[in-house]
Amino acid sequence: MHTIEYIQNLIEESISNQKFDGYPPRLYEPIHYTMSQGGKRLRPSLMLLACEVFAGDIHKALYPSIGMEVFHNFTLVHDDIMDQAPLRRNRETVYKKWDTNLAILSGDTMFAMAYDFLLKTDAELLPLILPVFNRTAIEVCEGQQLDMEFENQKDTGISDYMEMIRLKTGVLLAASLKTGALIGGASAAEADGLYNYGIKIGLAFQLMDDLLDVFADESRFGKVSGNDIITNKKTFLYLTAYKMANDEQKKALDTHFSPINSQDSNQKIEAVKSLYLQIGVREQTISAMDALYQEAKEILAALNLSNESKSELIRFSEILMVRKY
Amino acid sequence: MHTIEYIQNLIEESISNQKFDGYPPRLYEPIHYTMSQGGKRLRPSLMLLACEVFAGDIHKALYPSIGMEVFHNFTLVHDDIMDQAPLRRNRETVYKKWDTNLAILSGDTMFAMAYDFLLKTDAELLPLILPVFNRTAIEVCEGQQLDMEFENQKDTGISDYMEMIRLKTGVLLAASLKTGALIGGASAAEADGLYNYGIKIGLAFQLMDDLLDVFADESRFGKVSGNDIITNKKTFLYLTAYKMANDEQKKALDTHFSPINSQDSNQKIEAVKSLYLQIGVREQTISAMDALYQEAKEILAALNLSNESKSELIRFSEILMVRKY
Repeated sequence: MHTIEYIQNLIEESISNQKFDGYPPRLYEPIHYTMSQGGKRLRPSLMLLACEVFAGDIHKALYPSIGMEVFHNFTLVHDDIMDQAPLRRNRETVYKKWDTNLAILSGDTMFAMAYDFLLKTDAELLPLILPVFNRTAIEVCEGQQLDMEFENQKDTGISDYMEMIRLKTGVLLAASLKTGALIGGASAAEADGLYNYGIKIGLAFQLMDDLLDVFADESRFGKVSGNDIITNKKTFLYLTAYKMANDEQKKALDTHFSPINSQDSNQKIEAVKSLYLQIGVREQTISAMDALYQEAKEILAALNLSNESKSELIRFSEILMVRKY
Repeated sequence: MHTIEYIQNLIEESISNQKFDGYPPRLYEPIHYTMSQGGKRLRPSLMLLACEVFAGDIHKALYPSIGMEVFHNFTLVHDDIMDQAPLRRNRETVYKKWDTNLAILSGDTMFAMAYDFLLKTDAELLPLILPVFNRTAIEVCEGQQLDMEFENQKDTGISDYMEMIRLKTGVLLAASLKTGALIGGASAAEADGLYNYGIKIGLAFQLMDDLLDVFADESRFGKVSGNDIITNKKTFLYLTAYKMANDEQKKALDTHFSPINSQDSNQKIEAVKSLYLQIGVREQTISAMDALYQEAKEILAALNLSNESKSELIRFSEILMVRKY
C-alpha cells in the first residue's frame, strides 16, 4: 500500500501535468490560476487511498480524483463571488483579480471539465460513480445556499449548522472516499461505510476549522485570523456560545456581533475570544470534535478491512485533525 | 415515425411532470420558474427526432433530452447575469427577480441536474453520449466568453462572429441531434453527419434571429424589437453593414453605435434600419442564411437515411426557419 505522502505527490504531479488551457485564452487563465494554487488536495487523496484500501489500481482512480479536485475548486470560485471574499490561500480570488462575469463563466467551464476527468476511467464504472458525483454536486450547492441563508437568519440552531456543513463540506469528502472505494472494487455496502466515515471526518474537520480561526496555538501557527469573528460568521463556536450563554453574556455577544458594531477588529477578536473562554466554548467544540472522530473510528472498525488499511485511513485523518489548538 | 408536434407535446408533458424541487426550497424556486417557462423545447425535440430517424426508441432518449433542456436553461440563467438582461420570454430574469447569488447557485444546481437526466438511459450508452455533452458544455462557455469579449473589441470580423455563434448556439443543437442519433443506434459517422447538419441549421437559425430583431414582418409579428440596435450588439447585420459601408455610411454607423449616443431609441432603430437597407444588409443576411440552409440540406442528402426521415428533419428545420421577414 502506498503512503499518503506518495499519493499526494502523485496527485500534485498529475495536476501540474494537466493543460488547463484553450480558446479563448482569457476564459482559461482563471482555471489555470485556480488549479495551480496547490492546497492539500484532500479529496483526490482520499479517493486514491480508498481505492487502495480495496486493493484497486490507483491509476484507475487518478483522473476521477482530479475531477473531484477541479469540482472542489469550481465551488470555491463561485463561493468567493457569493461571499465577496477578496482572498483565498493568500492570493486574490478570481472575481477580484478578473471580474464577476469571468469568475462565473470560468467556474462553469471547470464544472464541465470536472466531468471530463471523471469519465477517464473504465466505462463500466461510470454508472456507479457518476450518480454519486451528481448527487454530491447538488448537495454542495444546497449547503452553500443554507450557508448564505443562515447569515440573515436569527434562529439558526446547532443542528441546522451541522446539516449545513454536512452538505457544504462533508458530502464531497465522503463522495471522494466512496468513489475511490467503488473504483477499487468495493461492494455497495463497503463503499457506503467509507462514505459514512467521510461524513464524520468532514464534520470534525469543519469544527476544527472553526476552532482554529479563534484558538490556534499561536506559538506554533502565528496569530489567529479571527476572520469568522470579524465577518460575524455563525460558526459552531458562535452558535454554541449563544446557546450556553447567560443573559449578560448573550447581551455582550449581541453587541459584538451587531452589524453596526464599529469596534476595532483586534479588540473585537480579543473580546469575543475571552467571552468564548468564559462560556466554555473551546471545550465544547473540542468535545464535539472528539465525539465525531470517535464515531468515525467506530464506523471504520465495523468495516471488514485489513488492519493496514484501517491504520492508513486513521493516519490520514490524524494528519488532518492534528491538534493545533 | 412520430411527428414533430407529437414529440414536442411529449417533451412538454414530461418536463411538466418533473419535480424541480428540494431543500432548501429557495434554491429550487428559480429552477422551477425557469423550467416552467415553456419555449420551443428545440434541443430535446431535435434529440428525439434524431433518435427516431435511426429507428431508435424515443423513450430511451426522453430523459437525456430533458437534460439538454435543463442545461440550455442553466446557460440562460447565467448568461442573463453576465449580460444584465432584465427580461427573458417576457418575464423577469432570475437574477432580477431574486438576486445574483441565487442565480449563480440555482444555475450551478441545474447544471448538475442536467447530468442526472443524461444518466437516465441505458448504461452502455453513457460512454458514448457523455463525452459529447461535456465537450459541448465547455464549448458553450467558450462561445459566451467570445460574445462578451466581442462587445469590447474593435476589430471583430464576420468569421469571428460565425465562430462565436457556432459555439454559443450551434454546438448544442448539433450535440442534441448527435446524442439522439447515438441513442437511436446510429454509427459514429452517421451521428457526426447529423452533428454537422445541426451546426449549419444552428448558424442559419442565429442569423434569422439577428434579422428578425430588425426586419420582422410587422404586419404578421407586430413591431420589431430593435433590441440588438438599442444595446449596440455586434450582430451579423451590424458586422456586414460595417464591412460593406462606404465612408459616409461608416461614419453614420459609428455615430449611431457610439456608447455616448443619447438618441431616442425609436429614432435610432429607424435610422439604423434605413442605413442597413441602403447598404443592402437585409439581402446579404438572407443570402448567407440561404447558403447555410442549402449546405445543411446537402449534408442531409449525403446521409443514408430514409426519405421519410429526411423530410421530417427538413420539415422541422423549415418550421424553425419560417420566413418571418
